[in-house]
Amino acid sequence: MAVRAIDTAKPMATSNDDGLITLDELRSRLRAVGEERYHHKHPFHLMMHEGRLSRGQLQAWALNRYYYQSIIPIKDSIILSRGPDPAFRRAWRKRVIDHDGDVHSEGGIKRWLKLAEATGLDPKEVRAGKGTLPATRFAVNEYLNMVRSRSLLEAVASSLTELFSRDLISLRMEKLRQHYPWLAGGLDYFQVRLTQAPEDAQFAVAFVHENAKTRVEQELAIQALRDKCDILWAQLDALYFAYVEPGWPPPGAFCIKVKEEEKA
Amino acid sequence: MAVRAIDTAKPMATSNDDGLITLDELRSRLRAVGEERYHHKHPFHLMMHEGRLSRGQLQAWALNRYYYQSIIPIKDSIILSRGPDPAFRRAWRKRVIDHDGDVHSEGGIKRWLKLAEATGLDPKEVRAGKGTLPATRFAVNEYLNMVRSRSLLEAVASSLTELFSRDLISLRMEKLRQHYPWLAGGLDYFQVRLTQAPEDAQFAVAFVHENAKTRVEQELAIQALRDKCDILWAQLDALYFAYVEPGWPPPGAFCIKVKEEEKA
Repeated sequence: MAVRAIDTAKPMATSNDDGLITLDELRSRLRAVGEERYHHKHPFHLMMHEGRLSRGQLQAWALNRYYYQSIIPIKDSIILSRGPDPAFRRAWRKRVIDHDGDVHSEGGIKRWLKLAEATGLDPKEVRAGKGTLPATRFAVNEYLNMVRSRSLLEAVASSLTELFSRDLISLRMEKLRQHYPWLAGGLDYFQVRLTQAPEDAQFAVAFVHENAKTRVEQELAIQALRDKCDILWAQLDALYFAYVEPGWPPPGAFCIKVKEEEKA
Repeated sequence: MAVRAIDTAKPMATSNDDGLITLDELRSRLRAVGEERYHHKHPFHLMMHEGRLSRGQLQAWALNRYYYQSIIPIKDSIILSRGPDPAFRRAWRKRVIDHDGDVHSEGGIKRWLKLAEATGLDPKEVRAGKGTLPATRFAVNEYLNMVRSRSLLEAVASSLTELFSRDLISLRMEKLRQHYPWLAGGLDYFQVRLTQAPEDAQFAVAFVHENAKTRVEQELAIQALRDKCDILWAQLDALYFAYVEPGWPPPGAFCIKVKEEEKA
């Protein structure tokens, strides 16, 4: 292929003749999205890791994040339903099993309920979802909108926050054990995700690299990751606003009932 | 029809023999939802009406609310597409025209852009939507999810916040003129809604009353209004969190650029 004049309007100098970026460059662009937008930098997580959240605030987190956990296998089932290739579906269905469980494993949703129980919540009430912030539901439902309405490529790319989750989960487990020792019995969910998430991310990066046939498609995939980061970030904004500062849960939402002296 | 024994488990004592509540009782239940959840009580609106918002905060409001305004005729087109009755569609299409305009009128979306321009924003940029809070988009998109996925009855009932909007708009126009006189040229949107919204609400209440054939359907309609109120409330929570207190817009969102001394 003849070398073409470099189009300086194109954002990356490392693009090949077709404008496509390489696998290494793709990884680097995806990592840059995480640095800018992944929720590891959110003040609610920083407070968690510094031991500055009360038990009630951790309850609000566990309750609201349960809604996110509960839709993950629904999200992955939508992606399954859109994958035309049996090999793709065989690989992707692992994710549904990881969260819903099978004869060998209880699955991620039940593990999250154990975490919620360790915060002092009744797992039946968590499962019923009463008191979940509307803003949590709106953000999480947008994840379903995304994987339904965008291309399969973008739906797969939106899962790539898993590229960043291992580091966050490692730190979180250490800090939760240190600052909230009463939670230690509820951390199975995170232990399992330490290996599941990187495996899944590896598959999804390879899929995006192989299936984005143009630079425009590559950029759409990167944008899908950016939008997914916004979905995670908005969930923590809603928690912070309702339960930290100014501390105004909307009408009908969960109210913190545990005494302030139970603060960690 | 024989009088049946009163089922004390039913919430309303005024229900008729079928458990259906009367038109008056329905109106009263709907009004009670507004009292509890409509956004007239939201602290962001209270600050607005007390003249305590800066020009930059009003810009953030105009920019974000534009996204809501821009999807209203899309929402109403979805409802149009689901109405099997030509008479219903003839009545409902008025709403699409009210917002998109016709040869006689510029429509609500253009009027909202004029309001945004009066705050000092470039209407082209507002229309492009750059900097709109992700949480605004998530809440507003949930309105589209609602009218797509629930019954036509619930989709119509979700519009019933218009029962409460006349009072809020009257107050808002008075307070905006009083505290932010530089906005006075941008208030056409509200002037027109003072008559449009009550007409629309009257039609929708009659529709809900005639088409809810069971008490369960009546309760679903009331719940749809509650959920719609949550969508409006969440939009103001997101604005407050990003631009008032603690004042943390998420990565990539609109940042207030006007000087603090331009505070109203």
